Amino acid sequence: MIQPFDDEYFMRKALQEANLAFDKGEVPVGAVIVLNNQIIARAHNLTETLNDVTAHAEMQAFTAAADFLGGKYLKECVLYVTLEPCQMCAGASYWTQLKKIVFGASEPERGFINLQTKLHPKTTVVSNVLENECSQILKRFFIQKRNLN
Amino acid sequence: MIQPFDDEYFMRKALQEANLAFDKGEVPVGAVIVLNNQIIARAHNLTETLNDVTAHAEMQAFTAAADFLGGKYLKECVLYVTLEPCQMCAGASYWTQLKKIVFGASEPERGFINLQTKLHPKTTVVSNVLENECSQILKRFFIQKRNLN
Repeated sequence: MIQPFDDEYFMRKALQEANLAFDKGEVPVGAVIVLNNQIIARAHNLTETLNDVTAHAEMQAFTAAADFLGGKYLKECVLYVTLEPCQMCAGASYWTQLKKIVFGASEPERGFINLQTKLHPKTTVVSNVLENECSQILKRFFIQKRNLN
Repeated sequence: MIQPFDDEYFMRKALQEANLAFDKGEVPVGAVIVLNNQIIARAHNLTETLNDVTAHAEMQAFTAAADFLGGKYLKECVLYVTLEPCQMCAGASYWTQLKKIVFGASEPERGFINLQTKLHPKTTVVSNVLENECSQILKRFFIQKRNLN
């Protein structure tokens, strides 16, 4: 059975955002926020462009989604992000009361899982959706960067 | 000996910011960022006004300080904040490579200390500067809020 709106579908949308980051010379991480199978926010990492370490894809997506909804909680929303969120972004998700986090590539060193960042009790997690594509774009970015330096 | 630029001096500046938040009906938390004894950013909690759970005083202060400096790292900067930072804000401080965090009131439940958020290895912490004043303004806020509801 075709399931057009499954986790892979939305992760591909997050990957499109990661590609936009790549083209700007940003560490290629992308995110979308989904409510009732509709994308209500899209964002990609802009830490270099904005000169701001807090400008991770997820942080911008949370702000944009709350703005769209006109309420600061994202209780029924799902975050799709190509890289496992860091402590800051997972900590932000706690405050949003997010329903679910779906991420692509794991980040064992700086990701929230090994660092044991506390999520909101209602937030569930799905790991490693399109893991290969999500980590390949990061690898490609860092190889290119190394070759340019 | 008079030490005009000690931790209490800058915490009073953060408390002034907390008072601005109080007057706007925001949970009264204020922050300043100091570089070489100069305040380079001031901010207070604006989560209600901006309808955005990421708009904690510290997050705005990090963004403003990086903007002021024209560089995204705050390696020589000190954050003064009236309430112990949460996971999100402590996680953001990791990315800024902040020199020092000085906070006022403790937050045992949602603060970064008990939740063991990882700080940047170079970041030091000073706790409970003007603790009483910093927690009193919070208590006053929640009592007033309870009475209004």
